[in-house]
Amino acid sequence: MEEFLKENEKIDSLDYKGLKIIQNKKGFCFGMDSVLLANFAKKIKKKAKVVDLGTGTGIISILLCGKTELEKVYGIEIQEKVADMAKRSSKLNNLEERFEVINTNIRESKSIFQRGSIDAVVTNPPYKKAECGIKNENESKMVARHEIYATLEDFVNIASFLLKEQGDFYMVHRPERLADIMVEMRKQKIEPKEIQLVFSKQKEEPKLVLIKGKKGGNSFLKIKEPLYIYDQKGNYTQELLKMYGKE
Amino acid sequence: MEEFLKENEKIDSLDYKGLKIIQNKKGFCFGMDSVLLANFAKKIKKKAKVVDLGTGTGIISILLCGKTELEKVYGIEIQEKVADMAKRSSKLNNLEERFEVINTNIRESKSIFQRGSIDAVVTNPPYKKAECGIKNENESKMVARHEIYATLEDFVNIASFLLKEQGDFYMVHRPERLADIMVEMRKQKIEPKEIQLVFSKQKEEPKLVLIKGKKGGNSFLKIKEPLYIYDQKGNYTQELLKMYGKE
Repeated sequence: MEEFLKENEKIDSLDYKGLKIIQNKKGFCFGMDSVLLANFAKKIKKKAKVVDLGTGTGIISILLCGKTELEKVYGIEIQEKVADMAKRSSKLNNLEERFEVINTNIRESKSIFQRGSIDAVVTNPPYKKAECGIKNENESKMVARHEIYATLEDFVNIASFLLKEQGDFYMVHRPERLADIMVEMRKQKIEPKEIQLVFSKQKEEPKLVLIKGKKGGNSFLKIKEPLYIYDQKGNYTQELLKMYGKE
Repeated sequence: MEEFLKENEKIDSLDYKGLKIIQNKKGFCFGMDSVLLANFAKKIKKKAKVVDLGTGTGIISILLCGKTELEKVYGIEIQEKVADMAKRSSKLNNLEERFEVINTNIRESKSIFQRGSIDAVVTNPPYKKAECGIKNENESKMVARHEIYATLEDFVNIASFLLKEQGDFYMVHRPERLADIMVEMRKQKIEPKEIQLVFSKQKEEPKLVLIKGKKGGNSFLKIKEPLYIYDQKGNYTQELLKMYGKE
């Protein structure tokens, strides 16, 4: 499979249905947050048209192709080299028909797609504000982690533009931004409908929050049971293993 | 202590420092939500001036007098009979100097207190919208549970009026209203700073949410570790027993 690789790149297994991903050895590599989001969004309907805002190396889109019967997912990625890796990962997994990578700023989505034409939007946006502690990071990590090219407001605003009425929005983010997220979603008419907090282990504060919203939905939020990554003994929990198809 | 009681009333122990409360045998009786909120708010500063919006029979204010060194807490209660019980409970606990009950609609608070004159506001407001399933409830229960005389918007708006800059807001509510709460708080310039979800037991959805906000605070939300009421065997958890001073 070496024909798919450029310098300093490697192919990693996604540990799920034989799916693989191309990553840069020194760049931003996918984390558990993407795996959790793909699992959280696995109820995406058959034949859905999906947009993955800030797809990076394509991890979420590729997993969604494995976990759902979506018709097509468009991954938008601003970084040329990263988008190129995602394109080759799409090919590597024989997903060219279902996973299309578009190399542009997510802000351009409004001129690529028609308003209200998309069934579901998924996104793992940068978690930190642009001004928060950027240092000693290479560019790909910096763009993935900080709101350099697009802010939370942009991600939610663009999702709202793309989604059909009653279309679904799935995002993973940091708990400390939850108030920002809910305020922004409400403002953009994507109603928060479901939240799940992700904890490393018991008796700790949550590390991540998974959020599902519905375009034009009614106000009623379901907070799900907590999701724990590790059990008391430090092993992966059953829930986690299930996501990797290993229960 | 019967001299404190009117018809159909009883004196219940608060199981904390000998504090007691007068309740109507058929009316709304205090629940664990009030005990949890009093505990969540126990960092209220020495000599603080506090307002308890919708104090009911006074449970939260009475517990706060026991758990903190607040100077004075004003409990606002619209229902005459309920406010009267709270007044007698204040006397019964020798708290007349520290816990003052005011029998009025919380909306009147703006003409009673000066803007920005209060250090902390606590509230256990009605959880349900006025139109949601009111039936077969006596009046005191109905007013305690439904937004009949004041809505969530009123509670947050009045809290914001009363609070000093950097003053603290403590509320207990239902998880399904969390988006409403955050949006309303942000709108009224009370920034959500801390959240704790309360679960009956493991692997269930949360029953309650405790929220701390700061008037004029910066955007950064801390979500605390989950609080469980019962352990796997169905006994109260250590955290719960601690609140009752029984660890």
